[in-house]
This record gives sequence, structure tokens and C-alpha cells, in this order.
Amino acid sequence: MRIALAQINATLGDFSGNRIKIIEFAKRALEMKSDLVVFPEHALFGYMPNDLLERNSVVDEQLREFAQLEKEFPKGISGLVGCVTYIKSKSKRAPLTKHLYNSAAFISHGKKTRYFHKERLPAYDVFDESRHLAPGKLADGKIRFRSKSGVVNLQVSICEDIWGWGESENPMAKISRSGTDIVVNLSASPFTKSKRKSRLNVIKKTAEHFRAPVVYVNMVGAQDEVIFDGRSTVVDKKGSRLLDLAAFEEDLQVFDFNKMKADRTHVGSMTAKIDEINLVRNALIIGIRDFARKTGLKRCHFGLSGGIDSAVVACLAVDALGPENVTAVTMPGPFNDPMSRQWAEHLAKNLSIHCLNLPIESSYLELLRTLEANVGKTDFGIVHENLQARVRGVMLMAIANKNSSLLLSTGNKSEYACGYSTLYGDQCGGLAPLGDLLKREVYSLAKLYNLVEEIIPHEILDRAPSAELRPGQIDQDTLPPYDELDDAVEQVIENCRSARSQTEKFVLLGSYKSEFKRWQAPPILKVSTHAFGRGRRLPIAHRAKT
Amino acid sequence: MRIALAQINATLGDFSGNRIKIIEFAKRALEMKSDLVVFPEHALFGYMPNDLLERNSVVDEQLREFAQLEKEFPKGISGLVGCVTYIKSKSKRAPLTKHLYNSAAFISHGKKTRYFHKERLPAYDVFDESRHLAPGKLADGKIRFRSKSGVVNLQVSICEDIWGWGESENPMAKISRSGTDIVVNLSASPFTKSKRKSRLNVIKKTAEHFRAPVVYVNMVGAQDEVIFDGRSTVVDKKGSRLLDLAAFEEDLQVFDFNKMKADRTHVGSMTAKIDEINLVRNALIIGIRDFARKTGLKRCHFGLSGGIDSAVVACLAVDALGPENVTAVTMPGPFNDPMSRQWAEHLAKNLSIHCLNLPIESSYLELLRTLEANVGKTDFGIVHENLQARVRGVMLMAIANKNSSLLLSTGNKSEYACGYSTLYGDQCGGLAPLGDLLKREVYSLAKLYNLVEEIIPHEILDRAPSAELRPGQIDQDTLPPYDELDDAVEQVIENCRSARSQTEKFVLLGSYKSEFKRWQAPPILKVSTHAFGRGRRLPIAHRAKT
Repeated sequence: MRIALAQINATLGDFSGNRIKIIEFAKRALEMKSDLVVFPEHALFGYMPNDLLERNSVVDEQLREFAQLEKEFPKGISGLVGCVTYIKSKSKRAPLTKHLYNSAAFISHGKKTRYFHKERLPAYDVFDESRHLAPGKLADGKIRFRSKSGVVNLQVSICEDIWGWGESENPMAKISRSGTDIVVNLSASPFTKSKRKSRLNVIKKTAEHFRAPVVYVNMVGAQDEVIFDGRSTVVDKKGSRLLDLAAFEEDLQVFDFNKMKADRTHVGSMTAKIDEINLVRNALIIGIRDFARKTGLKRCHFGLSGGIDSAVVACLAVDALGPENVTAVTMPGPFNDPMSRQWAEHLAKNLSIHCLNLPIESSYLELLRTLEANVGKTDFGIVHENLQARVRGVMLMAIANKNSSLLLSTGNKSEYACGYSTLYGDQCGGLAPLGDLLKREVYSLAKLYNLVEEIIPHEILDRAPSAELRPGQIDQDTLPPYDELDDAVEQVIENCRSARSQTEKFVLLGSYKSEFKRWQAPPILKVSTHAFGRGRRLPIAHRAKT
Repeated sequence: MRIALAQINATLGDFSGNRIKIIEFAKRALEMKSDLVVFPEHALFGYMPNDLLERNSVVDEQLREFAQLEKEFPKGISGLVGCVTYIKSKSKRAPLTKHLYNSAAFISHGKKTRYFHKERLPAYDVFDESRHLAPGKLADGKIRFRSKSGVVNLQVSICEDIWGWGESENPMAKISRSGTDIVVNLSASPFTKSKRKSRLNVIKKTAEHFRAPVVYVNMVGAQDEVIFDGRSTVVDKKGSRLLDLAAFEEDLQVFDFNKMKADRTHVGSMTAKIDEINLVRNALIIGIRDFARKTGLKRCHFGLSGGIDSAVVACLAVDALGPENVTAVTMPGPFNDPMSRQWAEHLAKNLSIHCLNLPIESSYLELLRTLEANVGKTDFGIVHENLQARVRGVMLMAIANKNSSLLLSTGNKSEYACGYSTLYGDQCGGLAPLGDLLKREVYSLAKLYNLVEEIIPHEILDRAPSAELRPGQIDQDTLPPYDELDDAVEQVIENCRSARSQTEKFVLLGSYKSEFKRWQAPPILKVSTHAFGRGRRLPIAHRAKT
């Protein structure tokens, strides 16, 4: 039996586009002499839909496209396609109830389509599946597949279904360990820096449990904050990898279970060792690119300050959208080092991107004059600092409006954690590519970009980070040293540990006090196990202190 | 047996404050000769904690306060107190797993505390309980209560536990219908316009099922977007109300089950018929007041445009915080009718609130000049309109910074639905009191405020709504008539229906296109069954059209 792994980049809600893509991949898989082609979880719907699932009209539309997909599905090959189905007849449905399944449809020309439903519905971090979905029964996911080479017993599972190891209610453990020839898993498993390891671990456990190889097909592409890395795989019954698909791009590969061999063995990341920061870079690139593409935007821009964060955003933006679609905006104010603009322009030149200069001083002074005349003077402080940041925000949004351009926010996770950002100021943006990166990771990315030649002027890497909102300011006037700060953010925010050191307490209390800012933050590309954004839901009005 | 209903306003995370309040209410209940005092769900923790529950340090702190509460609990009375407990020993816990119970602790002096755990964990709308909580067993919630008048069999339930009628897996239906003398329910059930009716309905069904009276104790107060109306109640075994506690304020009442009579019968809303818009007003007042109080702010301010929305916000703010803590800000721009400011100042005078005037024209022109000089001129349009709105946003945020004052956003649901608001402009704010009100409800509130005397100048009610961002502009140049728009928002957004009419399509597609704005909206006080805010999680990057 030959199984094709169709690692596609589905667009959420673009049901006809996804259908066309699925058919195209199925045809290619047929040409490659596959008996079965497996698509990711939610391949037809796109993932993650969240409250789009409240709308029966949207689900109905997907089901109409599914009917079309069944008709168009090529003869001579079967398919497993992720989709959304109703649990009962239309009349029984209501919004806000669990009336849907997360399903894998088994399509074979001329036969009635069979459906299998995900049992374990994740309700943690970014996952909200228990809001709209009802659990299926993994034990029902059995296919006796008749191929030219004989009958093969498949066990179908969907993503989280194979992640229950160690839990008392693991649905896998309830299924007989014998009688399964191949386990198939349709996934939409988001990228994080550490995900690959844990993913390969559960795949291995699944293989060992059933004493059977596993075909694991993962979604690729990005949707809002969440990035899918693909890297679909086939493992043998001991969990050893036999085939790896590409990371962060669409891919189609065939594995021959008669020969226990892939058609092409030197593929994707199987042989190449890719280090973590490279993966993060690739994740962020597809994150920016897909956000722009899937919202229908071509261009992006951002404030290029001459600091490290915006320098890295510039490099990522160029990789994501091409230099011709990227505009950097320098916005010198009353307290900027004149060199900042020079280094920024040097970087823009290195990247061959358009660079606009919008000085903010006159606007800042005019706003300040109006405020002082009508509200009274105050000593130089937060009012003046935020005013500069917000004038820049207004400038950048005017360019977004004028050019239909995606404004990228340049803040990083270390700053966001302790509230070191201005709401409606530097926080402005349609997407925050660095919002889940510790400051040290921003530096690592910068060094990666400078590996072959100095793209980012070394002065930007060497200077002390500063918001340049008052004379001679550096971040470390207000914040603990970044190395300490990063460690504390990891401990207190990512790992939810209690705050013991002074710096950890600074981060924790700072994070509580600034929750109102993150409530209104742009979508943040997620690369860690615990990012700011929709996957982290802290209240604002509370008195917790630990 | 005499049972006291202690309807308290707990503050999330203020465990010592909540403990002190609980002890104080318990002592008063003892003075009132009660055998048992019942507190709301999460009385000690505060509700809704969401991802605060990720932090074991926070749960540990609550448990330390619980131990103190047990010690201090008065002799001679028992208590049922909502709190959070671990399901197992510390060593087995990990963040992001379901390691907690939503519990009711039965405290009796000198006896070991017994715990009962919520079985039905809501995962819809604003509720995220399945993220951190494990289900208990409602069937275990039995207390043989020995009072002076004999043994009384209590069935303890927590909020959602009694809401499962009509479902196949209703935990109530699994419990024997006989042997229960009184059903007790600890709730933190948020207010919506229609909630009272459905709530009384499930209480009635519960009473009828057990052929027993129900003591229903609800939380009061507000937490971020969610408002608890209190209105605790006692019903007889047929579901007829015997006692109503106050709406939107703390209350303590005793019901004597020997006499089947409350100590005071003319209480709360039992006799007074309060109409819907009055309830909404009271909900929004406590919503603003508690948000300010629980975040530690005393003052608030907002842009007072001379339009209906900000006029209503002004009235609510005065009721919530007192006129001495409220500042209105007029910000005339190049296209404002000069009468707008005059009407706004007239309203401010009627409300005895401070009124600041911050003209935006010079700042707007200076920003525009910089933009035109460096990016080029464009025809008057969205750039110019948003620029005015954003300069106002910057002004208002400067006042927030200067005066530590809560900025109230004045947008309504009808506008927000179709994206008729400026991100980082009029959307700026720490809280949006009208964000869940249709335009017609804003008018109803205005009329309510003008019922006895004309507080809001009638010109504000009579004029055509306008953003005044270009000459002679009125909202209806861009939007469908508000009556149609409101109906469409109700159908398409609140009820998740498909879009049939032109106006409904306008709203639906407008809502899809503007999701990026609501992603970054301030917290919105929820009064409808389906509000914008954390209870509605739509993606941004998608292509759904129905």
C-alpha cells in the first residue's frame, strides 16, 4: 500500500480555494501511484475557526463545498480529508451549543463517504475546541483498506487524539493494541520552539502502543497568531522516522508500505539539522506572509527606530513580502540620537527597502502646547514620553490608511511582559511578529541575519537599547538587565512559576499592572509554549499579587 | 431550619478582603439566627479568574486564606463558601492542565470541612472553565444537615450544574428525585437582558424535579466585561418565588424553612417591577464603578462630542463615580458644528461635571502638514478622518496619564459591529460601557435620563448622529438607517443567523472586515446574550463570507 502525505496550507474559510487545492494534491498523489492520500485536520475548513463555527451558514457553505469535493475527487485513489460536520439534523442545532464534530472524511469514488470524529478536544492555550465541538469516539476510527497488495487495517486519529499518553482517560489506551496495520493522524499542530520534540515523542508512543507505523500529516501555514510548521512524518512501529516532509512549506510525499520506503529519501529536514533560531525565523516569515496574504494585503511598514527590534522586523518583513513591498519609517523626535536615523537608513539601504522620514517634533510640540494651555503644565514624565510614542502611532496608521499597508508592531515579549510599551503608541499595529520573542532571541535573530554579511549595522547591535523618549534614556534605567529580565519572563510568564527574585517580582507585578495594554495588543505570532495573545487570558481588574 | 443568602461582591484575587467580607456576613447571618449561610460561587477567589488559575502560587494563596477563614468562621452557624481547590497533591500538578475544582466548601466549627465540586463546566461565550477545571460529581453533593428543628437533606449544586435541562447528559437527572429537602445553588451568573427569565426557569425546573425548594445565591458586582446582578432567590417546590434579594447591590436575607417564610417580605425587586432599560442602566453603572474600584482608579473622563453616545456615557459615569470624579473633554475639530460644543457644555453643566476644552485643529493640521510634506497629498478621505479621531485619542490618553483617570470609550455595538469606529481613535479607552448596546438602546437610556427633567439637552437627542469628521457628514451617509442596522446586528451578530437582507449583508461583511479593530478593543461591558469582547472569538485572517 502506498500512502501520500498531502501537507497543504489551507486558508480559513476559503472553502472553494481549499477544495481546489485538495483536488490538485489528490491528482498529483494519484499520478504518484498512491492508494490513499491523507490531508491535515480541517484541510477543507482551514484552522483555527474559533467562533466562525457559531455560524451555521458558514458550516453549511463548507458542507456544500465538501459535496463538490466528493464529486471531483479522482477515481483510483482514496482520501482522508479534515472537515467539520454536524452531529445531528439541522433542526436540533443552536448557536453556542456543541453541535459539531471535528471530522476526518474517508472519500472513495463510488462509495459512501465515512466519517471519523476527534475524541480529545483541546481546551487550553490557543485551543477552544470544546466551545463548539462534541467529542467523537476514537475507537470507531477503523478502516479496512483494500489495496492492490491486500487488506490493510488503518486506525484513523485526529491531532490531539494521540496526545493523551500518561492521562487516565487516554482514548488510545482503550483500543486493542493488535489488529492495526497503520495509524493515520490528521493534524493541525502549531509550531513552538519545543513542539517538534514532544510531537515526535507522542508519535513514537503511538507507534509503540499499536506496534504499527504512523502516518502523521500536519497543516502548514499561518492563521492569525498561530503558525503551523508542517513537518509531517512517517515512523516505523518503533517510532523511528522514515520520512520527513518540509518545514514551513507545502509538500507532497509518498510512502510505500510494501517496501517500507519513501519514494524520495533525501527530503526536507530529514538530513539537515536546523537550529532553533532558524526555525523561529522561518516561522515568523510565514507568519507575516500568510497574515498579509490571507487578509488580502500586499504591503507592510513599521517604524524603523535604529534599535534592534525594528531592525529585525525589517529583515523578517523583507523575507516575508519582498523588499519592494516593505516601507520603513524613521520618525525622529526631540530626544533621538541623530545616529539612530542614520543607522536605520543604512539598514534600509542594505535591505533595498523604501525609507520614509516623518519627523514628529513639530506635531509633538503642537499637541503638547494645546494640552499645556488647556490642562496645565506638568514636569517632564510619562505624559511627554507617551505623547511622542502616540504621535508616531498616528503617523504610522496614516500610512496604513493611505497605502493599505499592514503596520507591523515591533515590541518584544520581554517589554510586553512588564508593560514597557505605549498603548496606542509603539503597540499600534495589525500584527506583532516579535511579541513572543525574548530580547535575547531578538538579538539571536539579528546575528543570524548578519551571519554572512553585515546587513544590520553593527552599531544597532552594539548600542544600549533605548526608547529615546527623554534625553540620554536607556531601557536599563527602568528595566532590570535584559538577561535577568528574559529569564524572569520565562519563569514567571511562560512557566507560570511563582516570583521569587526581585526581577521575577518586577515582571509579575508589572505584568498584572499592564494587563490592560495586552488586552488591546495586536495579534502576536506565537513561537513559545505560552505566548501573549488569545492563548493567554488574564483578567484586568483583580488584586492577585503572587 | 433558617438559611441566610449572603449575596456579596467579591473582588477577584483579593483573598483577604473577600475572607473578611465573608466572615462579616457570616456573623451578621448568625445574629439573624441562621443555621446556615450560603455564599456565591467563587466567593473567596472572586470570579472570573480565567488564566489566573494557571498560577499555582495564586491558588495556594487563596487556600492559605481559606485556612484562615475556617479558623475565623463563627461558631453556631455553618457556611457554604465558593472557592477553588486542587484535585490532587501538589506534586502532580502542572500549569495548563485541568488540575483544579470549582468547589463549594461546607464549613462547620469544629468539624472537618467537606467539599463539593461543580460538574458542568461551561465552555461557551465568556466562560472558559474547561481550561483549568476538572468536573466533580453533582451526585456527591449531599449534606445531612442537623439543625435545631431536625435533620434536613441538602443537595448542593454550583451554578451551571442546574442549567442542563433538556440535555442528554444532565447531571441533575441522574440524581434520585426523592430524599432532597432543599436544593442549594451557589452561582456567579452574569447579567444579560434576558438572563433573569432563563435563570428563574432553570431554578423552577430544579425545584419541580426534586419536589423541593431551591436556595439560589448569586454573585453581585462586576469584573472586567462581566456584570453579576445578584437577585438571589428562594423558590418553593413548585418554583414560585418566596424571596428576592437586591439587584446590583450586596444583600443578606434569611429564609425560615420551618415557617416557609422570609424574615422580610418586601425586599428588593420582589414587588417593584423594573423595566429592562433600567436594569441595563444599573448594570452599566456597577460595571463602570467596579472596574474603576477594582483596578484602583477613582476618576474617569471621556470625549464629550455633543452626540448621543458620549452624552449617555457622561450620565452613567456620574452615577457610577460621582460628578466630582468625572471630567468631560470637548475637542472641537475643523468640521464640528459649533453647537456641538455648546450642547456638550450644557450637559456637563447639568451634570455638574468638570469640562475641559482641547481644540484639535492645530495639532491635526501640523500632523497633516508633516504627512503631506513627506508622504504626499491625498484627496480628503479616510486618512484625514482617522487623523482627527486619533488626535483626539492622543489627547484623551494624555489626560489619562496625567490624572490617573480611566478613559471611557463611547462607541456602541451597532457601530462596532460594522467597523464604524477608528482604531486608536474613538476606540481608545480602558472600558467601553456602551459597546454592547444597540444604537436604539443608547437612545432609550438617554430618554430614561431625561424622564424627570431634561438632563441631556434635547438637541442632542434630536440631531442626526454624526462623527463630524468632514463637512456636513451624518452617519447615515455611510451606514444604513440605525433602526435597520440595529435589527441586522441583532440577527447576524447576536443570534448568529445568516445574512439575507442588504443591511444584514452589510453588517456581516463589515464585521468580518473590521475584526482586527475589535481584536484590539477595550473591555466591553456585557449586557446581551452575545457581546463583543472576550466572549466572542472571531479570527481575522479568513475568507468566510456567509
